[in-house]
Amino acid sequence: MLVKHGVVIGLGRLTSHLPSSSSSSVLRRQQFLVRALCGSQIIRAMSSTSEADAESILRTVTPSLDPKRHKGQAGKIAVIGGCREYTGAPYFAAISALKIGADLSHVFCTKDAAPVIKSYSPELIVHPVLEESYNISQLSEEDQRTVQDKVLGEVNKWMERFDCLVIGPGLGRDPFLLECVSKIMLLAKKSNVPFVVDGDGLFLVTNSIDLVNSYPLAVLTPNVNEYKRLVQKVLNCEVDEQNAEDQLRSLAKQIGGVTILRKGKSDLISNGEIVKSVSIYGSPRRCGGQGDILSGSVAVFLSWAQQLKQDPESPSENPAILGCIAASGLLRKAASLAFTKHKRSTLTSDIIECLGESLEDICPAS
Amino acid sequence: MLVKHGVVIGLGRLTSHLPSSSSSSVLRRQQFLVRALCGSQIIRAMSSTSEADAESILRTVTPSLDPKRHKGQAGKIAVIGGCREYTGAPYFAAISALKIGADLSHVFCTKDAAPVIKSYSPELIVHPVLEESYNISQLSEEDQRTVQDKVLGEVNKWMERFDCLVIGPGLGRDPFLLECVSKIMLLAKKSNVPFVVDGDGLFLVTNSIDLVNSYPLAVLTPNVNEYKRLVQKVLNCEVDEQNAEDQLRSLAKQIGGVTILRKGKSDLISNGEIVKSVSIYGSPRRCGGQGDILSGSVAVFLSWAQQLKQDPESPSENPAILGCIAASGLLRKAASLAFTKHKRSTLTSDIIECLGESLEDICPAS
Repeated sequence: MLVKHGVVIGLGRLTSHLPSSSSSSVLRRQQFLVRALCGSQIIRAMSSTSEADAESILRTVTPSLDPKRHKGQAGKIAVIGGCREYTGAPYFAAISALKIGADLSHVFCTKDAAPVIKSYSPELIVHPVLEESYNISQLSEEDQRTVQDKVLGEVNKWMERFDCLVIGPGLGRDPFLLECVSKIMLLAKKSNVPFVVDGDGLFLVTNSIDLVNSYPLAVLTPNVNEYKRLVQKVLNCEVDEQNAEDQLRSLAKQIGGVTILRKGKSDLISNGEIVKSVSIYGSPRRCGGQGDILSGSVAVFLSWAQQLKQDPESPSENPAILGCIAASGLLRKAASLAFTKHKRSTLTSDIIECLGESLEDICPAS
Repeated sequence: MLVKHGVVIGLGRLTSHLPSSSSSSVLRRQQFLVRALCGSQIIRAMSSTSEADAESILRTVTPSLDPKRHKGQAGKIAVIGGCREYTGAPYFAAISALKIGADLSHVFCTKDAAPVIKSYSPELIVHPVLEESYNISQLSEEDQRTVQDKVLGEVNKWMERFDCLVIGPGLGRDPFLLECVSKIMLLAKKSNVPFVVDGDGLFLVTNSIDLVNSYPLAVLTPNVNEYKRLVQKVLNCEVDEQNAEDQLRSLAKQIGGVTILRKGKSDLISNGEIVKSVSIYGSPRRCGGQGDILSGSVAVFLSWAQQLKQDPESPSENPAILGCIAASGLLRKAASLAFTKHKRSTLTSDIIECLGESLEDICPAS
């Protein structure tokens, strides 16, 4: 679509400069050039069938800003993550959701992580409700169950209000915490709340694939290593770069049609049926935290695409696929802009600061 | 090179102002002055043969940004430091590493220091694992050993992933903590991980020189006082400013060929064989924390120089020496730029903000 769109615009622009008379050899050469150029572009557009038109999808998915709408209608996101060790990752995911245009962004984390995450930004609503083993290991099994029930109750009372969860940024690998999180996934599924799984959430899911199996509102966003482990576990083989698209489709199908966004030089996205790629050039900086921006962004765009689905005139494509394409495209554009400004010293916070400008560039608010 | 370059520029500037006629006595005196001035500069340039071409080394050592590389390949640094009393120093060292271009920067500090260091920046991964005496003094000797083993286990499980450690910024002088840190040094040596020792880490090393003796991947970055104590302890004499280069060479040789960066008006660097100096003008501001920028920077450039060493076409010089020269040159340039902008109110954070621009100026990212 992007390429086709580019061709149409390109053709319009090129031909509009041509004089009305077409007798001169200069003009014939120009017309030949236009035809040759457009022809090759169309061929390229047709051959790269899997490349998504991310900008066009961003424009389609992003809701217009209507003064009649009230707080919450542009998205309520919750990040499940943040423990004693990690606090940056859930912050990056949650603040990215707001910077794209969500109305409310919550974080559910451990008691140790909460004051730190709160200190990063007063914009976030941070719930210090998760528990790690070191804090409850002296309790009896029964008391530990009581603690778990309390944690689940604290999260579940909010569940129905959320449009999407992001499960995993900075979660850590504490067994007690991960057990709670696996039950939070069950609660989300029960309430039909979509969720994006990243980071340590993927560690959990890879070891207990049933947690997401056949849930069409689950999105997994593995990086190189996380993808490798998923392929080994689910397909019982190694990553096959020669048949990357087919393998991704098989993997998503094998997990019952969840959507997988495989991060890489090009991002590849599949729900077990179609495969799309996003290859817009981003940035050569690989500072940690960019995956957290992506997971927070997928949550917002997925929510918006879900809202769109209720409109009978909207595109019929899977909201999870649309959300992944939009998020991947926007992150790449923002990373590119941040790199132009900050070069080698580009940090994840710099990219987050460019999300708004990048989205505005593609899809102006007014 | 820099001085030579300065001479050429100086000569050009001075002579360009001379009138074409050269008959007047005023002009003869001017020409004499030019010759005398340039002559003395050339002599100085030739005698200070050890001045390193820091900018050229920065260009050689800094890797090109390749979109095919993935997270971590541009450097994973860890700072061991940060206690109840000091939190700024480890932050400065760790964030400087990221601002220069490392992908991941960790801090291992005490439980009290962690929330504060985390709150400075979500970009850092901060592990609250070190322990101070006040927290464990009521424990039995056996339990104290268990605590120490736990601390070492927490650090060691990450060790192999790091390209370089920075040991010392904001470490404090608690005996229990320093004992743990001395064992962390042994673990680093066992895994062949290079480390930069600064601040209280130098206090530890000066009293237990065996910790670094003959480890070619150790870099010490003493300031005036820390250098004085090292010389007294190792060479059993006072600092000799008249023979500063020879004395530094002897000191580094005596510690088995570790690399020492002696900070001062000019930074002097030796591994017991060669001696190099970096004299680029920095800033007259002496606000605390600049040494932390330097130690974090040495860690990054040393890692990059180590990667370069694997390339058969790379310069054969010692990566620790190259890392020290590059870090010293960049800090001086950034300090100079920050001083131009902020004058007397220049703080360490302002210098850190100038690291990216300074590196970009010397070695453009694209």
